[in-house]
Formats: sequence, structure tokens, C-alpha cells
Amino acid sequence: MAGTDNTQDNALPDGGPVIVLVEPQLGQNIGMVARAMLNNGLDRLRLVAPRDGWPNPEAVAAASGADSVIEKAEAFETTADAVADLQRVYATTARPRGMVGRVLTPRKAGEEFMTVRQEGHRYGVLFGGERAGLNNDDLTLADTIIEAPLNPSFKSLNLAQAVLLVSYEWYQNRIEAPAERLETGNTEAVSKEQLLNFLTRLEAGLETGGFFKSPDMRPIMVRNIRNLFQRADLTEQEVRTLHGIMEALKRAGANTG
Amino acid sequence: MAGTDNTQDNALPDGGPVIVLVEPQLGQNIGMVARAMLNNGLDRLRLVAPRDGWPNPEAVAAASGADSVIEKAEAFETTADAVADLQRVYATTARPRGMVGRVLTPRKAGEEFMTVRQEGHRYGVLFGGERAGLNNDDLTLADTIIEAPLNPSFKSLNLAQAVLLVSYEWYQNRIEAPAERLETGNTEAVSKEQLLNFLTRLEAGLETGGFFKSPDMRPIMVRNIRNLFQRADLTEQEVRTLHGIMEALKRAGANTG
Repeated sequence: MAGTDNTQDNALPDGGPVIVLVEPQLGQNIGMVARAMLNNGLDRLRLVAPRDGWPNPEAVAAASGADSVIEKAEAFETTADAVADLQRVYATTARPRGMVGRVLTPRKAGEEFMTVRQEGHRYGVLFGGERAGLNNDDLTLADTIIEAPLNPSFKSLNLAQAVLLVSYEWYQNRIEAPAERLETGNTEAVSKEQLLNFLTRLEAGLETGGFFKSPDMRPIMVRNIRNLFQRADLTEQEVRTLHGIMEALKRAGANTG
Repeated sequence: MAGTDNTQDNALPDGGPVIVLVEPQLGQNIGMVARAMLNNGLDRLRLVAPRDGWPNPEAVAAASGADSVIEKAEAFETTADAVADLQRVYATTARPRGMVGRVLTPRKAGEEFMTVRQEGHRYGVLFGGERAGLNNDDLTLADTIIEAPLNPSFKSLNLAQAVLLVSYEWYQNRIEAPAERLETGNTEAVSKEQLLNFLTRLEAGLETGGFFKSPDMRPIMVRNIRNLFQRADLTEQEVRTLHGIMEALKRAGANTG
């Protein structure tokens, strides 16, 4: 991970936004913000005039293990001080009324962060306090607004939830995770040869058991059965289990027949 | 909004997943779940064996206005009871170890929900309680796992945060919001004619003020100035303000010159 300035935890992606909380009130919420940040590989937190002072033990308690974020957090007296060294500032608000400026979804912002990062710019995101959000003076410090498209009749997120969405969208762009995968536990996906071996034995058993009443229908019935098992994305272990089931049913029939 | 069974709030998109909390502990967290759901247009909440009983006044207090979700929430004794009428069940877990099955990101699940909804299926998402998450018996009731790609060394989300991500990804697929827009407050984006009018007057003023020192450089300087103002996505009001600034600067020069 070239270019990172974070030597403590190499699992953290470098180059994410600084998170700036403006006049946060509850230490509990600051802690939950830290947790949401670390969930998404962010660890640079700044606080503007936190109501209950800083450091705040309640923040540590609510961070649920994201202590490193809380320990490194910096407090500032004004929003202007907190963003002084940044080159790009985004502001989150549910009420961009009367302002003029670009408004991005969190998803679009997450994409843009990648560009800003590649350009090597220092950048951050402002979040308002619990009661009133960001005021107009804060908003004039920002280049760009981030607004999440939410239920228009109930769009106010709590502080940690707002930080989560922006952090999450950053991290989803930062990493490359497959949208879908097959979890196979401690076993491998079955090979087609192994699956065909099972299907052949199954069909022989069905033949013996008189399952195929009509020779005309046999091919289509076989095809349907094969399709069912192919579709199931079976593992080696599951196919072994199916062999066991098949044999057990035969024994059951032998014992009662 | 055809096909909705929600007659109370027409702003709520129909057809979202049922949210099932399995053995939730804190009423506060149930309330925050309700809030995260309603933020994203979801209002069907089910609870399996909530530790502190149901209804729970702490849940209402923490719902911050999402009371309708809390009021309609239903409690069940077992997870099997809570999903009995559903046709598709998703389960969220940070630990899909040893299981076999499809694992989707929340984003992919949000897309799939649209398909499931179009097929008219009843479906829901299981979330485990605060302490231990879902147990293996709960997981066997699910067709599909949802796992958010998060910081591998700090991936445990709190309950409301997990519900938020899944609900948010649903809602982002449900609605069609532009990823980027220009907020212009109470004014319109300026027309090219109005902008050109301003630029022409500005250039005349600059000419008078001796800004263009070299006739050779004039075209490129004009182009740079025009480019700057074109790029700024100005509104009508802002262009009026720029006219005012220009005239005020001329007057200032006249008064002091």
C-alpha cells in the first residue's frame, strides 16, 4: 500500500476523507461515529467545539473497540480551523435550501473521493450536530454538498448513520469485493465429474425402484432431475451427504420391504 | 403507486422487505432500527423474542418520529414463526463460516429485492441480536446470506447500522435519484445569453481599465476568463450579483481615482 501515512494498521485503506463533526453533542454519538468510520477503513476524525469537551469517556465506551479513532481524534474551536489544511470540503445536509452548488449522492461522492485521492488532495466531509445540523457559515466552507436520497417525508438521519453512509460508499469504491459469491465452508464446490457420478447412481436407483413409469418420459424426467441438482451449486461434502441419503433410503426399503 | 397495501403514507415505496430482528436486546436499538427503516421507505418490522418484552417504551423514544413503524411491529416467539409466511428469506451475518450458500453484498441484495418484488414474492431479512448475531438454526431458515464488505479487521456493525445499510441499498434501487444535481435555491441556472451579456460587459470594463496589456494576448485571456465563468454553473441571481460587483468596483474606482 504505497503512499499511506498510516503505519499502525496496514489493513486500513489509505487516502480516505477526514470526518469533521461540527458541534456534536453526545459522547455516545461520537463513539458510534468512530465505530462506523473504522468499519469502513477511516480513522481521521476531527471535532469542532464538542459540547461536553474532549476527550470524552462516553465516546470511548460507545466506540465498541474503535478506540484508535477516538484516541487520534482532534478537537478544534471553529469549523474554519478544522478545515484549514484541507483542499476540498464536502458538507452533508438534508436541507440544501437556498444554497447554490453541486449536490451529490453519497454514492457519487464515494466515486469522486477516489479521484480526489488520486490527485493527492487533502479532503474532508462536514457533518452537523444532532440538533440543528450545519449552519450557513459552515456550508460556505464547503465546495460540494452531499445529500442522501431518502424517504422525502422522513429523511433525517442520526449522526452516526449519516457518517456510516458516506464512509460506506467510500469503502465500497476503495475495495473491490465480488457482489456475489458462494460460501462453501470448509469444503470445495463439487466437480462436474463427481456430480455426474452421483446423478448416474441416483438414476440407476430410481430405475430399480420403478420411478420411471414410462420409457417415453424417462429422458425429460432425467433432465429435470439433473437440472435441479446442477442448479443447487453443491459442494463435495453435500454430494457425499446425498450419496449417504440415497444408500440409507435403499437400506430402509430393504429392511421394511 | 399501484399495488401498495400501505394506505397511510403514499410516499412509502411498496414492496420492500420485511425486517426481522431476532432476539434484540435494547429497546433503544429497536427504535433506531425503526428510524433507519423509515428513512428508506420500509415500515414492516418483526421481532423474535425481544429480551425486554413488547411493546417497549424505550423503542418509541429512540425511533425519533418513526412511531408508525414501532406501532405496527409484530412480536413472535420463534424465528420460524416470524418467517412462516415469507417465500424468500435473507440473513445478515458477519460470520458465514462453515455454511454453504450464496453470499451477496447489500448492494447486490438491493438489486435482487427488486426482482423478488416484481415476482410478487413475500420476502424478508433476518438480523441477529446485539450480542451473538444469528445462530445456526436461524441461518438454516434463510435462502441467501447478506454480508457487507467492510474493514476485515473491524467488521462488526451495530444492529441499526446493519439495518440501515440493507434498507438504504433497497431504497437506492427503488427510487431513481440523479447522482449529481445543481442546487440553485430559489433561482434558475443562467441562460447562455444572460451569461454572455455579463461577459461582454465585463470584457468592455476590463478593456477600459487597461487589463489587456498586449493585443496579442487578449484572445487567450478572454478565453480563460470565459472558461472560468462558464465552468462555475452560475445562476441568474449570481450573475445579477456579478453585474452589481462589477458596477460597484467601477464606482469605487471613480470615487478614489
